[in-house]
Amino acid sequence: MPAKSPVIVDLKFIPEEVEAALGGAFPDREVINRADPAQKDRDLSGIDYAVVWKSAPDLFSRAPDLKVVFSGGAGVDHVLTLPGLPNVPLVRFVDRTLTTRMSEWVVMQCLLHLRQHRAYEALAQKREWRDLIQPEAADVTVGIMGMGVLGQDAARKLATMGFKVVGWSRTKRAMEGMDTYGAADLDAFLARTDFLVGLLPLTAETKGIFNADLFAKLSRKGPLGAPVFINAGRGGSQVEADILECLDSGVLAAASLDVFEEEPLSPDSRFWTMPNVYVTPHVAASSDVRALFAHVEEQIARFESGLPLEHVVDRLAGY
Amino acid sequence: MPAKSPVIVDLKFIPEEVEAALGGAFPDREVINRADPAQKDRDLSGIDYAVVWKSAPDLFSRAPDLKVVFSGGAGVDHVLTLPGLPNVPLVRFVDRTLTTRMSEWVVMQCLLHLRQHRAYEALAQKREWRDLIQPEAADVTVGIMGMGVLGQDAARKLATMGFKVVGWSRTKRAMEGMDTYGAADLDAFLARTDFLVGLLPLTAETKGIFNADLFAKLSRKGPLGAPVFINAGRGGSQVEADILECLDSGVLAAASLDVFEEEPLSPDSRFWTMPNVYVTPHVAASSDVRALFAHVEEQIARFESGLPLEHVVDRLAGY
Ligand SMILES: NC(=O)c1ccc[n+]([C@@H]2O[C@H](COP(=O)([O-])OP(=O)(O)OC[C@H]3O[C@@H](n4cnc5c(N)ncnc54)[C@H](OP(=O)(O)O)[C@@H]3O)[C@@H](O)[C@H]2O)c1
Ligand SMILES: NC(=O)c1ccc[n+]([C@@H]2O[C@H](COP(=O)([O-])OP(=O)(O)OC[C@H]3O[C@@H](n4cnc5c(N)ncnc54)[C@H](OP(=O)(O)O)[C@@H]3O)[C@@H](O)[C@H]2O)c1
Repeated sequence: MPAKSPVIVDLKFIPEEVEAALGGAFPDREVINRADPAQKDRDLSGIDYAVVWKSAPDLFSRAPDLKVVFSGGAGVDHVLTLPGLPNVPLVRFVDRTLTTRMSEWVVMQCLLHLRQHRAYEALAQKREWRDLIQPEAADVTVGIMGMGVLGQDAARKLATMGFKVVGWSRTKRAMEGMDTYGAADLDAFLARTDFLVGLLPLTAETKGIFNADLFAKLSRKGPLGAPVFINAGRGGSQVEADILECLDSGVLAAASLDVFEEEPLSPDSRFWTMPNVYVTPHVAASSDVRALFAHVEEQIARFESGLPLEHVVDRLAGY
Repeated sequence: MPAKSPVIVDLKFIPEEVEAALGGAFPDREVINRADPAQKDRDLSGIDYAVVWKSAPDLFSRAPDLKVVFSGGAGVDHVLTLPGLPNVPLVRFVDRTLTTRMSEWVVMQCLLHLRQHRAYEALAQKREWRDLIQPEAADVTVGIMGMGVLGQDAARKLATMGFKVVGWSRTKRAMEGMDTYGAADLDAFLARTDFLVGLLPLTAETKGIFNADLFAKLSRKGPLGAPVFINAGRGGSQVEADILECLDSGVLAAASLDVFEEEPLSPDSRFWTMPNVYVTPHVAASSDVRALFAHVEEQIARFESGLPLEHVVDRLAGY
């Protein structure tokens, strides 16, 4: 029996977390951690597997024999745009901890806006004890664009918290207790949406979809007087100049952004300190690195025993 | 048939909200709104009902013939301490909107601590893009003291969000999927609790219960390194000097306080601006005034047709 193929690990995560998670991972094969300076000039030919997140652009020319590429996250736009991506299965990361983390972030952002958190923080800074007229979750309709693994979990949890929830996706997805819309019915979906949550992958079709035209179609009947935009999908789906303009003009009341057209977000961006904008640095649902390696091990085991891989990306659809 | 008794309304809420909710309420009887200057010297004898929240202390001497007293909120400590409370049924406010609002607040506070919100806000102020090591909800055990109407709803929603949840109450309450403790097992409950949520009524037994002794018994094995204290029950249950001391010494990592020993909280309090403390001005679950009046109407209808009143307070237990 030939020795098992090593695994290339090329993850732009917190290095200590990757290091810690590698202890005990892949017990039966070698790991080539590209963050390790000793591996810098290592010959990567003949290697079957790579786990990547924002890899260096020369990865595929240096590792020409890959049989499966694993994305270190749920999204794959960062892989699909790498030069020389071989025509082999691309597997994305789907995992309970990633899903529940995303829902933590989405529910928290919706609650921050609903519960006028920034207004209360400003009162506290002035040491002022005063209550504000407070709508409840049931007064707000949250519309989720992207009802995949993440969108469906967030929808269920938002509904449990009392929000009204509607969903939109390429193909209409039936969800118990909420109205859902397919691609063609975007305008009807937007007209009902007070808080818009973006959980879309970045593809040719979703690039720039969150723009001034779309924001203008959102409901203005919600209790905050204007809609709120919350995005944790991909920054490439949003037009930041339009978001700023809509926040300035009042077309949008507020925003929560975890993703940006360019990351890291420039220190010059106005978003950082706007009183009605919450910024987080693409951490809504960071991958649990141990869970990621367990998932890769499981998929490699399937692959090597002839079972079909799971969570394989549809290259044509782009997600 | 004698004319129906008027209802005295004496609510220290936002006056415009009370005014708006009174339009349409109690269509078949007179309302005496004590906030109306024209009613200031009105003779209140012979009147059967009063709806009160932080009433003036002379209410019961001025209205000696009350047959039922309704609390404007879920808690009744503010009524039980009023001089001259007659020995008639005291009905508290239990309502879907109040319950879901409380759970919004509790879940939001737990997420703010879990998701290191203040740390990310501080990074944003410095325009610094950096991710922090992020525990997930399943790494945290939330312990709820007070598993009544509010505690049970919060427990269920926290569990849906992925937190581990344990509960403590005077009588042990069975809750699906979580461990619960009765009064005698407080120490065992505390030893498991990373985030402590107070949803207790203020009674002789719960006065000052949240003190340094208790905080020292909380788990220190949670992912934040030290426990978090979150209170939306009553301020009289907490010893604020102890909370400050424990925050200073690291016995507590952080706190969220909606209630205080003295309200309004003094402008001199250190709580207002501490970096690891969230302060809200007793608004965790404000009563929806329309829902309150609907509940009072319903209970009066029961009372006048000879049915037993619901949500009657046990004077001996104090809640
Ligand atoms: N910020 C973070 O930390 C973070 C973390 C993880 C993931 N993400 C992002 O979240 C995205 C979603 O993840 P997921 O696991 O939920 O993906 P998924 O299961 O593949 O779901 C994607 C959803 O988007 C819909 N969609 C795709 N293209 C569309 C289009 N052109 N028009 C309408 N709907 C479209 C899909 O519709 P169908 O249902 O019809 O296929 C599906 O409902 C990822 O791609 C990634 O970009 C961000
Ligand atoms: N901050 C706000 O905006 C706000 C809004 C509404 C209410 N509140 C506060 O929240 C409190 C709880 O409301 P609720 O509707 O959930 O009340 P509830 O249904 O009466 O529940 C009270 C809970 O506390 C437990 N308890 C009472 N005394 C105890 C003791 N000595 N030792 C252990 N457990 C004890 C009870 O135990 P048993 O189950 O054994 O009876 C019960 O589980 C109210 O009293 C009020 O003070 C605050």
